[in-house]
Amino acid sequence: MKAAVMGYGTIGSGVVEVLNINHDSITKRAGEAIEVKYVLDLRDFPGDPIQNKIVHDYKVIAEDPEIGMVVETMGGVEPAYTFVRAMLEAGKHVTTSNKALVAEKGAELIALAKEKNVNFLFEASVGGGIPIIRPLNSCLTADVIEEITGILNGTTNYMLTKMSVEGSEFADVLKDAQDKGYAEKDPTADVEGFDACRKIAILTSLVCGQQVDFSDIHTEGITKISATDIKYAKAMGKAIKLLATSRKVGDSYCAMVSPCMLPQEHPLYPVNDVFNAIFVHGNVLGDAMFYGSGAGKLPTASAVVADMVEIAKFKDTNLPMEWRPEKLELADYKMVTNRFFVRTKADEAAVKNAFGAVEFVAAEGVNGELGFVTEEMTEAAYEEKAAKLADILQMIRVK
Amino acid sequence: MKAAVMGYGTIGSGVVEVLNINHDSITKRAGEAIEVKYVLDLRDFPGDPIQNKIVHDYKVIAEDPEIGMVVETMGGVEPAYTFVRAMLEAGKHVTTSNKALVAEKGAELIALAKEKNVNFLFEASVGGGIPIIRPLNSCLTADVIEEITGILNGTTNYMLTKMSVEGSEFADVLKDAQDKGYAEKDPTADVEGFDACRKIAILTSLVCGQQVDFSDIHTEGITKISATDIKYAKAMGKAIKLLATSRKVGDSYCAMVSPCMLPQEHPLYPVNDVFNAIFVHGNVLGDAMFYGSGAGKLPTASAVVADMVEIAKFKDTNLPMEWRPEKLELADYKMVTNRFFVRTKADEAAVKNAFGAVEFVAAEGVNGELGFVTEEMTEAAYEEKAAKLADILQMIRVK
Repeated sequence: MKAAVMGYGTIGSGVVEVLNINHDSITKRAGEAIEVKYVLDLRDFPGDPIQNKIVHDYKVIAEDPEIGMVVETMGGVEPAYTFVRAMLEAGKHVTTSNKALVAEKGAELIALAKEKNVNFLFEASVGGGIPIIRPLNSCLTADVIEEITGILNGTTNYMLTKMSVEGSEFADVLKDAQDKGYAEKDPTADVEGFDACRKIAILTSLVCGQQVDFSDIHTEGITKISATDIKYAKAMGKAIKLLATSRKVGDSYCAMVSPCMLPQEHPLYPVNDVFNAIFVHGNVLGDAMFYGSGAGKLPTASAVVADMVEIAKFKDTNLPMEWRPEKLELADYKMVTNRFFVRTKADEAAVKNAFGAVEFVAAEGVNGELGFVTEEMTEAAYEEKAAKLADILQMIRVK
Repeated sequence: MKAAVMGYGTIGSGVVEVLNINHDSITKRAGEAIEVKYVLDLRDFPGDPIQNKIVHDYKVIAEDPEIGMVVETMGGVEPAYTFVRAMLEAGKHVTTSNKALVAEKGAELIALAKEKNVNFLFEASVGGGIPIIRPLNSCLTADVIEEITGILNGTTNYMLTKMSVEGSEFADVLKDAQDKGYAEKDPTADVEGFDACRKIAILTSLVCGQQVDFSDIHTEGITKISATDIKYAKAMGKAIKLLATSRKVGDSYCAMVSPCMLPQEHPLYPVNDVFNAIFVHGNVLGDAMFYGSGAGKLPTASAVVADMVEIAKFKDTNLPMEWRPEKLELADYKMVTNRFFVRTKADEAAVKNAFGAVEFVAAEGVNGELGFVTEEMTEAAYEEKAAKLADILQMIRVK
């Protein structure tokens, strides 16, 4: 089976590397050798073994009948979308690691692949090397999924872990993450939660079988998390994690991305550094969790190549995937209940006046403010009560 | 699609229950309704809604052309094997939760299913509700799996957790587990590691693609673990878990079941109570872990029903599965290296004379003996050195 790789960046070159490293075992699993015939990139790579495979025009790939599958690792919606559509139209299987593309165009590309009797696979788009797309699609099918919650962004998890271990502030840790190459020069997509938001949109779409628009998801990042917040979390025996979560509410789901405090007994509590994990609660399965490397060249490429193996195994079969284009109207996140950790400059009487019964928390070395945890209430109720309290310094949801 | 359930015990009745509870979502995922037409059992169930579906002769099922898939939840090799073979021979898909059957006859039944262009699936045979069989078979296919290590038995994990939390002895905890229904009256299969042994044999077969005989796997249970061992483990910041593990050694694997001490940073460390988890290390993926309910009526039934959904989705397609009947000669476990925790009545000089440099460990309230951890060495080297030391009270491998 001949393949083409579109985009020879970190993941694309990782795909070529994994196909080389594990050539024999992959051939055995796929039932035949998978050979990369073309690599599409704007650049040339003189001296690289793939230089003679470089093409600059995607039509060369689309029009070559020898090409059975195409890997898309360019990132971003355009021109990836135009290229991927052309490949599917030409009857070629596609696998992608591109969460932006999948979140925005997933349902449409799945439908097009079905029409053409090929496959559009995207295991690497969420959770890097962690198998989660195929398990949701073909393993957790006996359940109604009542909750799916993930640590889906390695950069922010690395930063929060480091803040927790070292007691350092956000800005310092961001600089360190940038120096180490874990965070990009413009870290907005990671630290503001936009990356995690697209990923939970994809997972929610697979869970409900309909299109979930990421722009409908309430998203908060970690830029306001401080060393003081971490001190409180530790005093409470909890860890602050950026969680992307969907909970079933009636016939819909409520999705949100925000920092949360997790108790030690939660399966996601020990997930540290650049690792990702996805927690799932099914109505008959109970709790399950999938853990692994959520990013990185080879782990992500491992998931892409596993898709290529599936494509080789099922080259004449469209593998059913439940993600229809009809949009799901998400439930209003303000109706979801949580407990809320709050820091304020106000006094105890003012806190009790606004929130009623709360649990006050002391953190070592923190003075001149109060920290407390509310009872369980909806976001809407929280906002109403919080409006009655002056000088709120911070609010973090508590699981 | 009409189905039959063979064995109306805990899992079999759970399957019927899950099909009822989630009828609508399962129908959507499967593409059609799955209706249970027969339940095979020796007993009758007067008053049970399935009473009018009870049959006592498996041939009624095998000979009914309306039956497309059969669930086997009887347990044990015979008569399950005879019945399952007959169903596959009759061109019916089969799913089973029966680890004994799969460990012993898996390769043969997979080959027979392929010949008949049907499927023989067994997601529930390892890890209960945790998706692991399908992920190994269709997600981790780009990797050479260098290690697979599981907490695969909920009974023993519950017992070890309780011993750790309460400081109690094995015999007391066993009685509690039996009272709670977590351990059977004859607990041998669980506490001696035989159950975990069959499961790691299945996982290793899937990882290497060949038949691994469970009787070749060195297996130690938890019956000799004492409250004193737990004290030492805590002093070292470690947890004692019954691990079933396979590590790649050259072209083969070395498999073993034994209690081990795990450090806090190991992904399996926080897996407590009746939960199961499977840790996988791939050569390009790195570390991954699958966590969830390893036993129990509904979680296990969830995995069986997920197989039924796959069968409905692929009713005319044999899903490729890499598990050939050729036997894999396992590598000798005595060549695998570990560090070893040892308790002895001998003195320091004797310990150093036998083992050279070791790390002595003190545990609160333990007197009149020495505890130490050796350097990393093979099992063979350990045995040679241990033979030089009198009065060894305990040996536990350290990860």
